Amino acid sequence: MAPASSVAVENLNPKVLKCEYAVRGEIVIHAQRLQQQLQTQPGSLPFDQILFCNIGNPQSLGQQPVTFFREVLALCDHPCLLEKEETKSLFSADAISRAKQILATIPGRATGAYSHSQGIKGLRDAIAAGITSRDGFPANADDIFITDGASPGVHMMMQLLIRNEKDGILCPIPQYPLYSASIALHGGALVPYYLDEKTGWGLEISDLKKQLEDARSKGIDVRALVVINPGNPTGQVLAEDNQYDIVKFCKNEGLVLLADEVYQENIYVDNKKFNSFKKIARSMGYGEDDLPLVSFQSVSKGYYGECGKRGGYMEITGFSAPVREQIYKVASVNLCSNITGQILASLVMNPPKVGDESYASYKAEKDAILQSLARRAKALEDAFNKLEGISCNKAEGAMYLFPQIHLPQKAIEAAKAAEKAPDAFYALRLLESTGIVVVPGSGFGQVPGTWHIRCTILPQEDKIPAVITRFKAFHEAFMAEYRD
Amino acid sequence: MAPASSVAVENLNPKVLKCEYAVRGEIVIHAQRLQQQLQTQPGSLPFDQILFCNIGNPQSLGQQPVTFFREVLALCDHPCLLEKEETKSLFSADAISRAKQILATIPGRATGAYSHSQGIKGLRDAIAAGITSRDGFPANADDIFITDGASPGVHMMMQLLIRNEKDGILCPIPQYPLYSASIALHGGALVPYYLDEKTGWGLEISDLKKQLEDARSKGIDVRALVVINPGNPTGQVLAEDNQYDIVKFCKNEGLVLLADEVYQENIYVDNKKFNSFKKIARSMGYGEDDLPLVSFQSVSKGYYGECGKRGGYMEITGFSAPVREQIYKVASVNLCSNITGQILASLVMNPPKVGDESYASYKAEKDAILQSLARRAKALEDAFNKLEGISCNKAEGAMYLFPQIHLPQKAIEAAKAAEKAPDAFYALRLLESTGIVVVPGSGFGQVPGTWHIRCTILPQEDKIPAVITRFKAFHEAFMAEYRD
Repeated sequence: MAPASSVAVENLNPKVLKCEYAVRGEIVIHAQRLQQQLQTQPGSLPFDQILFCNIGNPQSLGQQPVTFFREVLALCDHPCLLEKEETKSLFSADAISRAKQILATIPGRATGAYSHSQGIKGLRDAIAAGITSRDGFPANADDIFITDGASPGVHMMMQLLIRNEKDGILCPIPQYPLYSASIALHGGALVPYYLDEKTGWGLEISDLKKQLEDARSKGIDVRALVVINPGNPTGQVLAEDNQYDIVKFCKNEGLVLLADEVYQENIYVDNKKFNSFKKIARSMGYGEDDLPLVSFQSVSKGYYGECGKRGGYMEITGFSAPVREQIYKVASVNLCSNITGQILASLVMNPPKVGDESYASYKAEKDAILQSLARRAKALEDAFNKLEGISCNKAEGAMYLFPQIHLPQKAIEAAKAAEKAPDAFYALRLLESTGIVVVPGSGFGQVPGTWHIRCTILPQEDKIPAVITRFKAFHEAFMAEYRD
Repeated sequence: MAPASSVAVENLNPKVLKCEYAVRGEIVIHAQRLQQQLQTQPGSLPFDQILFCNIGNPQSLGQQPVTFFREVLALCDHPCLLEKEETKSLFSADAISRAKQILATIPGRATGAYSHSQGIKGLRDAIAAGITSRDGFPANADDIFITDGASPGVHMMMQLLIRNEKDGILCPIPQYPLYSASIALHGGALVPYYLDEKTGWGLEISDLKKQLEDARSKGIDVRALVVINPGNPTGQVLAEDNQYDIVKFCKNEGLVLLADEVYQENIYVDNKKFNSFKKIARSMGYGEDDLPLVSFQSVSKGYYGECGKRGGYMEITGFSAPVREQIYKVASVNLCSNITGQILASLVMNPPKVGDESYASYKAEKDAILQSLARRAKALEDAFNKLEGISCNKAEGAMYLFPQIHLPQKAIEAAKAAEKAPDAFYALRLLESTGIVVVPGSGFGQVPGTWHIRCTILPQEDKIPAVITRFKAFHEAFMAEYRD
């Protein structure tokens, strides 16, 4: 059928056409087709299920939600339950009291009303209290914008900062493609700085400085620096000293620091801990005057993994009142983020505490998830490193491994013949042989001539051995086929 | 405190600076301040509460959610409840079976997982079935994009269609400012067509045609026509014949028809009914080839009024496969809409049916809300029309009245001296005297030289007499003060 001429694809917004989003890109769409094929023609493929390791979506792979959080959500969704006697036997006492407390902060207890465009004030107070307790420095509800996950906050900041293609945003390479997609959609320039794979994806200030000067010499007005800590797709956790240098760099260069801190609870090594950039800046004595800083957090990650609830927030500090008014205006055009996500954002920043009825079960659920993720990360890392031509850094945090695949020249040529990037060719072959979905490194950016894949550590622990076996068999066959 | 120079407000994206969103604009921000003042200094203002009539937010003014919907949401939030015996006495049997049915369509019953970027397939099937039953013409789950309310769908379409300031979108004047805001944010041109106040906000094809030709003669590439039916802020319900003409016009002129149909359940007159534009097009024999058409629906409006849940969908038909791929890509950059809102969107399109345990109570709740809204609309309309210098069309549908205020010349001069638009001056005085928050007509657009306010019909019915009394007293004093 011929489309109406006014909406031929070549007449769409070229910024949209240019945008790419690899974690839901070509390979994932192909995987969805194969999944349908498995349903309609069972046995027609060399595997019986698709294993989505393309995206940090823990509950899709069987992770269970934290009971306390869901109890509170259910009670807030249907507050009549709070008046019923049976409720006391179905819900924990602290979930009941938390739900009551939350409902009391919502005008008219109306969980179905649009809220303030920054989010319900009482929930922002709770989030600010959680940040204060995490950092040991005060946070303010007026600085919190509750959002539908972290992504809309990132889009909002890009929309504000990017005026045209001469406005640049410094982004790590490899990066999470939300950044490249958002910069493309808003018509700006992505200014890359490379993380150093050899030093465990280290961030070198000297490289930052070089890239900044290089961009400026080309007439790019570099407006902000994106840092993802813990790293995505790279999994490193920044050292405190490194964070000091980054903050100093932003202050000296007049850059907005956009700190993606959504993996703040996902740390798997004993010698590293999460420090928010706000804590670092404040502990250096930098206040509101010194540094415009945005911290993004999400209910999708951590041990909670509540991706589908679309909750999150950004904490903005160091912006003038007129700029904050503009941020508020942009937030208000979408009215408000969803209230369920808002409530959940307040809960993940204020989980049960020692003495609460749910504390023991909450703690057990949380620890089980995080300890299992650490074991899975280690098992997959070890497995990758045992394979010919694969080298894989440790996942200190986040939810991913980003192994380098040293592809034989013959494979690179076969990819070229198939009109694919070599890592996309590899990932597609992996999918078609095993049902395992990973994202090619080219979707995140990588040093030219190197090839990677991003694989989540999220398959349930009892499935990890099978994942490793299938991956190993595929990889060995692939290398045998293409060995130079 | 001086802001960092890189984020001075004058260096922000000029499209953002230009964007205005009156329903959460200056007057509403002032009202929020007054509300805080009432809390901290009770008795310091001539009223004891702020009455937010600026926005269609029913539950914020006391409307209760529909019980069945909330039962299902609570069960889906905390599926463990389904295994407990007590649940049977706390929830209706059809809510329990509906929750089970919904969970069965979600892979892994994971209500906390990211879904397909168009929304969970089973929920899209349910929405498509609801549309089919409403229209008597088939709908397809592949055409449904579930969204966080209607607004993100509108933004998505504007983002796709607008390339630069020479791309135009035909919008009614008066219009809901989401459209002007979204067009401004994406840098396009709003091409206005005027609704005729004298004929009850009629839409004249001859005016449409004139505005289109006028825009084209200025080099504007007009890409789409926005129609809001039932109208916002104007409350009219389009006659079927008028809809036929609009569809024909879009087909002949190669325009995308963007049909805002979020008030489809809000109709208060016996001689009008809602017809979706898709039903109209299909009943004219127009198929996929003839007309690119997008219908927006939301869980925020209707009798459900679940604004805070941020659920909705757009149904897109008549677009080519490559264009649909681009729409999917843009949707995928935000991963998916929130699952609670997705579930609710499926419920409002498939409420309890005759024979279901909840049917009687559901029907009673729905009818009570809609009948009360009709009475409130009539009472406010009558009250406005009794006042000196005010004329108000009937609200046939939606949630608003949009009376014209014939302001005396002296009031217009006082407004000028205060550097306000005359209707904003009036609305501000109204707020400061009565606590009633309305939106000045200038936020929606109006025929130059005419002045209006938009007032929702949403205060609870027992409060309407007091609203009318307060409004009347204010208006009479205002007119006495400024009478020429």
